[in-house]
Amino acid sequence: MNRPHLIKIPERGGTRVTNDGESMNILCIGDVVGKPGRDAVERLLDDLKEEFRVDLVIVNVENAAGGSGVTSKIAKHFLEIGCDVLTSGDHVWDQKELEEYLKEEPFLLRPANFPEGAPGRGWCIKSTPSGIKVGVVNMIGRVFMRYNVDCPFRALDTIIEEIKKETSIIVVDMHAEATSEKVAMGHYGDGRVSCVFGTHTHIQTADEKILPNGTAYITDLGMTGPYDSVIGQKKENILRRFLTSLPLRFNVADGEATLHGIVIEIDEKTGKALHIMRIQREDKAFQEQSGKKESCSAMQNE
Amino acid sequence: MNRPHLIKIPERGGTRVTNDGESMNILCIGDVVGKPGRDAVERLLDDLKEEFRVDLVIVNVENAAGGSGVTSKIAKHFLEIGCDVLTSGDHVWDQKELEEYLKEEPFLLRPANFPEGAPGRGWCIKSTPSGIKVGVVNMIGRVFMRYNVDCPFRALDTIIEEIKKETSIIVVDMHAEATSEKVAMGHYGDGRVSCVFGTHTHIQTADEKILPNGTAYITDLGMTGPYDSVIGQKKENILRRFLTSLPLRFNVADGEATLHGIVIEIDEKTGKALHIMRIQREDKAFQEQSGKKESCSAMQNE
Amino acid sequence: MNRPHLIKIPERGGTRVTNDGESMNILCIGDVVGKPGRDAVERLLDDLKEEFRVDLVIVNVENAAGGSGVTSKIAKHFLEIGCDVLTSGDHVWDQKELEEYLKEEPFLLRPANFPEGAPGRGWCIKSTPSGIKVGVVNMIGRVFMRYNVDCPFRALDTIIEEIKKETSIIVVDMHAEATSEKVAMGHYGDGRVSCVFGTHTHIQTADEKILPNGTAYITDLGMTGPYDSVIGQKKENILRRFLTSLPLRFNVADGEATLHGIVIEIDEKTGKALHIMRIQREDKAFQEQSGKKESCSAMQNE
Amino acid sequence: MNRPHLIKIPERGGTRVTNDGESMNILCIGDVVGKPGRDAVERLLDDLKEEFRVDLVIVNVENAAGGSGVTSKIAKHFLEIGCDVLTSGDHVWDQKELEEYLKEEPFLLRPANFPEGAPGRGWCIKSTPSGIKVGVVNMIGRVFMRYNVDCPFRALDTIIEEIKKETSIIVVDMHAEATSEKVAMGHYGDGRVSCVFGTHTHIQTADEKILPNGTAYITDLGMTGPYDSVIGQKKENILRRFLTSLPLRFNVADGEATLHGIVIEIDEKTGKALHIMRIQREDKAFQEQSGKKESCSAMQNE
Repeated sequence: MNRPHLIKIPERGGTRVTNDGESMNILCIGDVVGKPGRDAVERLLDDLKEEFRVDLVIVNVENAAGGSGVTSKIAKHFLEIGCDVLTSGDHVWDQKELEEYLKEEPFLLRPANFPEGAPGRGWCIKSTPSGIKVGVVNMIGRVFMRYNVDCPFRALDTIIEEIKKETSIIVVDMHAEATSEKVAMGHYGDGRVSCVFGTHTHIQTADEKILPNGTAYITDLGMTGPYDSVIGQKKENILRRFLTSLPLRFNVADGEATLHGIVIEIDEKTGKALHIMRIQREDKAFQEQSGKKESCSAMQNE
Repeated sequence: MNRPHLIKIPERGGTRVTNDGESMNILCIGDVVGKPGRDAVERLLDDLKEEFRVDLVIVNVENAAGGSGVTSKIAKHFLEIGCDVLTSGDHVWDQKELEEYLKEEPFLLRPANFPEGAPGRGWCIKSTPSGIKVGVVNMIGRVFMRYNVDCPFRALDTIIEEIKKETSIIVVDMHAEATSEKVAMGHYGDGRVSCVFGTHTHIQTADEKILPNGTAYITDLGMTGPYDSVIGQKKENILRRFLTSLPLRFNVADGEATLHGIVIEIDEKTGKALHIMRIQREDKAFQEQSGKKESCSAMQNE
Repeated sequence: MNRPHLIKIPERGGTRVTNDGESMNILCIGDVVGKPGRDAVERLLDDLKEEFRVDLVIVNVENAAGGSGVTSKIAKHFLEIGCDVLTSGDHVWDQKELEEYLKEEPFLLRPANFPEGAPGRGWCIKSTPSGIKVGVVNMIGRVFMRYNVDCPFRALDTIIEEIKKETSIIVVDMHAEATSEKVAMGHYGDGRVSCVFGTHTHIQTADEKILPNGTAYITDLGMTGPYDSVIGQKKENILRRFLTSLPLRFNVADGEATLHGIVIEIDEKTGKALHIMRIQREDKAFQEQSGKKESCSAMQNE
Repeated sequence: MNRPHLIKIPERGGTRVTNDGESMNILCIGDVVGKPGRDAVERLLDDLKEEFRVDLVIVNVENAAGGSGVTSKIAKHFLEIGCDVLTSGDHVWDQKELEEYLKEEPFLLRPANFPEGAPGRGWCIKSTPSGIKVGVVNMIGRVFMRYNVDCPFRALDTIIEEIKKETSIIVVDMHAEATSEKVAMGHYGDGRVSCVFGTHTHIQTADEKILPNGTAYITDLGMTGPYDSVIGQKKENILRRFLTSLPLRFNVADGEATLHGIVIEIDEKTGKALHIMRIQREDKAFQEQSGKKESCSAMQNE
C-alpha cells in the first residue's frame, strides 16, 4: 500500500533539522491575534529560527490588529523583525487603510482567488538568504465563508503554472472553515506543491502528515494568541454572545499567548516535503515580564 | 497565574491508567464512518479497553451507516460489542427507521437541544460494571449547522441540574462545526462537567487540555474511518464536487481506517478530570486481512 | 372549497375604508431606509392616515439610521409624528446607544424571540384614540439570518396567550429572509392573530391575502426608501461588491423614495381581518422640493 | 429626472398586446411545482398564449418532478405542449437521469454559471414561429444558495457578447434567494438585455418595472403550484419542520394551483422592453374537474 509517512516527532538535533544544503526548513505561524499574539511572535521568533534552522518564515497576520485585520504599520513591523511572507484571509479588508499598502508590498498577500480587480497580490516568490526561491500562495475557502470568491482549486492550477517557471518549492495557506475543503485542497495540491496548511479556525489540528505524493499537510496551524480565551477573544464576551445572541465587538483576551505553527522540511531539488512537525510554544517572556511563575511546561513543543 | 494543566502524555503502565478505585477512565471514540470505521472499532476496542483500563466507552455513531446516519441494527451491534453510550448529531435523522429505536434505547442519544417533541433522548446516566454512574449528554451546535435548534448552552444548565441528582461525573459530546462554539461550550461547562469533547469536523484537534476548573476539553476527537479520504469520503468524488459544484452522494472511501478519540481520567469523588490523552490508532487487522505489510507505525498513540 | 378571499383593491371611499365603529384600519409601513425613507414617512403619513381612516400605524424602522439600525433620536421622532408602534429586526443592535432607549420605550420593539436577557421588549399593547387595544408582536426568522434566536413559532404561542387576556386584535411583524418561514408563520398564526406581515427583504410581494381562518397575510411589505437603488443602497456600490466580493459599508442611495406597506381592515369584535391592501406611494414632495417634474403616476396605490 | 416607466396594467385589447410586427410578447412562467403545477400549465397555456398574443414561452421547471428537479419525460412534455425554453436552478441535479437529456436538449437550460465541465447548457437562442431570435440565459445566485458557482455577473458579460452576434433580444432567469443579488442583476443587465426576472422564492413580487435603460425587471415571478401550501409544500409538514427542526421530505401539497408569471412586450428592433405585466391565474379546470364552485375571481390577472 502506498501509505504516506506519518512523521510526528523528528529527532531534534539530528540531521533532520539541519539545513545541509539539500533540504530547507520553513516555519509557518498560525493566525496572530492582537497584541498578545504580536508580542509572542516578536519574543519567540529568533529562538525558533535558530532552533529549527529556519530558512523562511510565513505568518498569517489577518487578526493581528486587535483581532480584526492588519494595519500597514503592523505588517511592516512583522517584515522588519524577520517574517518573510505575510498571509491573510477574510479579515484582510477590515482595516480600510491597508488597501494602499497591499498594492505596494509584494510579500503581504491577500487570498489569490478574490475576483480580478481586487487590490494586492495573492501569491509571491521570496528568496531565502541562501538564494532558494519559495513560492507562497494564499487561498480562501468558500464553504461557510462570507465572501463569494472564485474557485480556489482552479485558481491554484493557474498559479502553480506561473510559479513553476521559477521554483518547484510552493507553500499554500488555505484559509478556510470547513475541514472537507481544506483536506480536499491538500489532496488537490499533492505532488504539485510542497505544503498545504490551513488557517482560520484558530485551533491546531493533529493531522499533520506527508501526503502520498510528497506534500506536507495540516488542516489548521492554530492561532498565535491569548491562551485562556475563545479563539483569541475574551471568554466572557463570547459566552454572553452565545447565550443572548446579541452581537459583539471583537475583544482580544488578555494574558499569555501561545504560538502555534509548523516547521516543514523540504527537499530543495524536488520541492517535496520530507517532514512536518507541529509547534506549540508558550510566550514565557510574558510570564517573566509579569513576574508570574509557571511550573507547567507540558505544552512546550508538545 | 491559575494556568490549567496541559497533560499530553500520561505515563503509560503507571497509576495514571490504573483504575485504583479513586479514578476512572472513559474512552471516547470520534465519528465512526461507514464499514471501515465500524470494523476498526470492532477490531480495536477490546485491546484499547484493556490497555487503558477503560470503565466506560462513548462512541459517536452518526456516520456509521454508509456515512449517513446509523441504523438500529448497527446501533445494536455497537452496544453488543462493548460500547456503552452512543452519541450522534445532525445526521441522526438520515435513516428513517431509526426513529422507533431512538425511542426505545436509552443509551443511543440524539442531540439534547432538539426542540421538545423530537423523538428519543438527549442524555442518559450509565453505570459502569463497578457501579459508578456517568452522565452522558449529546449537544449540537448552531453555527454553520443545518438545523435551527434550541440554545445548547441554556439546555446544558437544565440537564446538569438533572444529572447532578445522581452523579457528578458528566461527559458532553458537543457536535458542532465552529471552533468558537465548541471552545465556548468547554468554558461554559468548566467546573460543572467532567469533559466536553467536540465531534463533527472529522479532524482531530491538538488542543486537549484540562480547563482551569477541572473539565477535560478537546475541540474535536477526529473521525474513525478511512485514512486516505476527505473526511471519510472518496477523495476523487469530493474533489470533483469542489471543482464542478455538482452535488454528490456520500461515498465512504475504501482502505484502512484510523480510530480517533480520547481517554480521560476522572476523579470518581469530585467528577473533575485528571487527565486527557488523544488516541490515534490504525486498524492493523485490516492490513493483515488484506495481506498487506505495513512498516510505518508512527501514528500509534502518537 | 373553503377558499380564502383574495381582496386586492377595496373600493375606495366606500364603507370598506370607513371606520364605522365595527372595524378598524391599521397602516403597516415597511423597512424605512435612511433619510430618504424617513422623509417619505414624514411627508406622506398624514395624508395616508386620512385617506384610509387609519386607527393605528406600525412602522419597521430597523434601517432608519443611515440604513443600519435606528437611533433613540430617530425613534422618538417617529413616535412624535404619529407612528404608534415601531418594529425592528436583526439591525436593532447596530446603534449601540439604542439599548437604553429600548429598555424605556414600550412602543419600540425588538424581535420577541431573542433569548431571555436581551434588552427591550418584543411585543406591546397599544390603544387607539378611540380606545381599541391592539397587540403588536415583532418576530425574527432563523433561516439565512445571522442570529441564533429562539423558535419564533413557539414564542408566538406564549405571547398570543398573554395578549389575548386584553385583546383579540394582534398584528405580527415577521422579520425574515426565507419565504418559506414567513409563509409558515402566516399559516401558524392563521385564526389566532389578525395579521402576519413580513419585512426584511425590502421588496414588496404580490401575495397579500386573507388566510382561511381570517388572518391577513403578506410575505413582505417592501421598503420605504430610495427607489433607484439596490434595496435602498447605492447601485454602483452594490454592483461593485457583487463583482469584486470586497466588503462594503451600507450607503443609502439618494433620490426620491417610495413608501411601501399595507392597510388592513380588522373586525374589532373578533380580531379577524376583513381586507388587506398593498400600498406603494411615491414621495412626490421630494420632487417638488427639488423642482423636478414627474409625469408618471402609475405607481400610486397601484 | 430620468425616472423609469412604471407600467402596471397595460390596456388589454389595445395595441399593447397585439403583436404588430414591431413588438413581440414573451410569457415567462414561474417555478412549476409538482403535478398540480404541471396540470395548471397544461390547462392554462393555450388560453394565455392567445389572450396575450404570446410569441415565446419560457418556463422554470426545476420543481416540476414532485417538487424536486425535473425528469427528462416531464421536460419533453413541457416542450411538446408549447413551452419553448425551459429554465432551472439549484434543483436541476436532483433527478440523476436528467443529466443525459441536459446534454441533448438545447432548450432545457441549467444555470450558466456552473463551473466549466458541468453537463448541459446555460443559454440558448430560440426562434419564434415568425423567425425572431430570442436569447434566453439561466443564471443562479450565490447568496444563501447551496452551490459555490462562478460569478453570475461576470458570466453574463461573456454570454451577452455571444448572443448579441445573433440577436439583441435577451431574457435572463436569475434563480436566486437574496433580493439584493437579483435587483443588482437587473441593474447590471439594464440596457443590455430585454428582461431580467427572478425565480426561486416561489412568491411573486410586486416590483415589476422597466429600468432606466429599457430592461424589464421583476424580483420573482412566483411559483406555479398548489395555492394552499407553503411555497408548494404541504403546510402541516412544513410547520412540523419549523417546530421540531426535524428534516422533511418535499411533499407537494394537493389542491388547486395558481400560475404565476409575467408577460413582457419587447421592441423587436432594439430589444428594449416596452411593458411588463404580472400574471396570477387560477387553474379553474381543477375546480370544475373536482365539481367545486368558485365564486371569488379576484385573483385573475389581478
